[in-house]
Amino acid sequence: MIQNDLLLKTLAGDTVERPPVWMMRQAGRILPNYRKIRAKAGSFKNLVTQPDWIAEATVEPVDVLGVDAAIIFSDILVIPEAMGLDYEIIEKKGPLFNDKIRSQSDIDQLLEGDVIPSKLPYVFESIKRTKTILNDRVPLIGFAGAPWTIFAYMVEGSGSKTFSEAKKMIYKEPQLAHQLLSKITSSTIFYLKEKIASGVNVIQLFDSWSGLLNSEIYNEFAWPYAERILAAIDEVPTIFFPKGGWFSYDKFGSSDVFDCLGVGWSTDPKFARQKMGSNRILQGNLDPCRLYDSKQNIEDATSKMLDSFGRNHIANLGHGVYPDTSVENVKCFIDSVKSYRYK
Amino acid sequence: MIQNDLLLKTLAGDTVERPPVWMMRQAGRILPNYRKIRAKAGSFKNLVTQPDWIAEATVEPVDVLGVDAAIIFSDILVIPEAMGLDYEIIEKKGPLFNDKIRSQSDIDQLLEGDVIPSKLPYVFESIKRTKTILNDRVPLIGFAGAPWTIFAYMVEGSGSKTFSEAKKMIYKEPQLAHQLLSKITSSTIFYLKEKIASGVNVIQLFDSWSGLLNSEIYNEFAWPYAERILAAIDEVPTIFFPKGGWFSYDKFGSSDVFDCLGVGWSTDPKFARQKMGSNRILQGNLDPCRLYDSKQNIEDATSKMLDSFGRNHIANLGHGVYPDTSVENVKCFIDSVKSYRYK
Repeated sequence: MIQNDLLLKTLAGDTVERPPVWMMRQAGRILPNYRKIRAKAGSFKNLVTQPDWIAEATVEPVDVLGVDAAIIFSDILVIPEAMGLDYEIIEKKGPLFNDKIRSQSDIDQLLEGDVIPSKLPYVFESIKRTKTILNDRVPLIGFAGAPWTIFAYMVEGSGSKTFSEAKKMIYKEPQLAHQLLSKITSSTIFYLKEKIASGVNVIQLFDSWSGLLNSEIYNEFAWPYAERILAAIDEVPTIFFPKGGWFSYDKFGSSDVFDCLGVGWSTDPKFARQKMGSNRILQGNLDPCRLYDSKQNIEDATSKMLDSFGRNHIANLGHGVYPDTSVENVKCFIDSVKSYRYK
Repeated sequence: MIQNDLLLKTLAGDTVERPPVWMMRQAGRILPNYRKIRAKAGSFKNLVTQPDWIAEATVEPVDVLGVDAAIIFSDILVIPEAMGLDYEIIEKKGPLFNDKIRSQSDIDQLLEGDVIPSKLPYVFESIKRTKTILNDRVPLIGFAGAPWTIFAYMVEGSGSKTFSEAKKMIYKEPQLAHQLLSKITSSTIFYLKEKIASGVNVIQLFDSWSGLLNSEIYNEFAWPYAERILAAIDEVPTIFFPKGGWFSYDKFGSSDVFDCLGVGWSTDPKFARQKMGSNRILQGNLDPCRLYDSKQNIEDATSKMLDSFGRNHIANLGHGVYPDTSVENVKCFIDSVKSYRYK
């Protein structure tokens, strides 16, 4: 029994007094103890493979910020790595892969499916240790990147403003693209199932680069694979966050494979409500940059955002919290949500 | 009298047989002679200040690609430079400013308004030389960045995935932000008036970073300044391209200060039509990555895109053409539009 089960109740459609609140990237970046762990670890990759440090980083925001959920500290790129594609995180630049996937033989060499979890024992071990420390105070969220987003990194080989190499494969070699997307999909399903078996209570699927496509391409190369993963997860509730994917809201609105839709900050809550209906659970979407503002303005903006979403809502930012945000202002956001009551 | 006046007729709302076609970034990057000029110039900054080279780069796509309009080869960042903020273009990285605008005194030191054109004589000289070489074959488009986009670079000091420093000023010091936006606006108006006096036939205003905001912030900090510029231009038709600004289409739909709305590739033509009405002229929006595809697919996608927009349309990409696009495929896109006929 989870003591603070506000997130789970909301995801189940129960009537609650206020929305639950957590923040993407809450584990890490902004918190003082995280920074110490990060310095000790040396590299991000070293940190992300150490269960004790992961557990510490995951639980810190529950203790310090009072959020209603923990999210396991990890990275969406552990999946390509488990499939056989090593990467590094370059400080202030982002991920860099040693190889890129560009051909049939590149794809053929990738592992997929049920062998994937065995490559990532530290993730499942860290979930177990986190559950022990959390001691059922709040639910634990596990996550993965959606196939299009993972595909984008694997083909491009790094972050990119345009991901034009990844899109080149989609346009020029759609059959290759579908093969790679399928391999990512089957790998992600086994990975998430093992996360659930290890103890996570909710799954979030991040499609961070949705906004680089349009509805036609998204509905052919991105959504069907995300849908397959979401449909495969029936043990726990799911949150799907297609950032910038407003153009496919009609598609999402008619789907029942996920429980909650994450909304980015540039999408008006009223637009999301109108497209998704009043009963659909929505998550988001304060602009992370709002947390640079004065406390009064953070309170006002939070309250306005909560009013706009109405019931069936999980309060969050519309993107991960930025590293230079003050802990005080983050707390102001969290506390604003916690003192809010539905009328 | 412009010989090929298809663009001007379309912008005037006249009935035409087919849409005119041109491409953002058509002057430069992909063309062989441009690359030679670029190599001769050494740096981008050296190239962009030399009227003869600019004229050559501007006219090349008319000769080689057969587009229905030329657009003067330039950079939106000449405005901050004229206001007193130097920048460099770092190869493969983008613009880097030596100073950033962060305080009242930073803003106070900036030039603005009617003095701005005197700082950019090479732009107007290059327009005159281009007009001579073009010899009225096609119209010449002049452009500027919209104030929010220019503001974003001036405060951030470089390109950025989030432009969180620029947004920080908007949230934290809105009065400072409004002052800077006003200075950029008055500077841009005088700059564009001088471009028109030098001979450009159409003005396009690029709001390239619209998508980083939401409707509330856009409608307070971006649109009013873009609107002021567009309203001030009554000598020639105007095209407004708020890339990623789909969330403010209701605002744009009810405005008559511009003649044509540019549509990015992630926005469905049907969504734009529905919001803007069948009589509004729209420009766009083939995904530049589509030009990596086979010729048959480029033809099919172009024809489908033209069908979706219907009449009152200027064919273009939904973003600047990417540097690694083959000239042959670009020609295939241009020729597909030119052989299209409205039913």
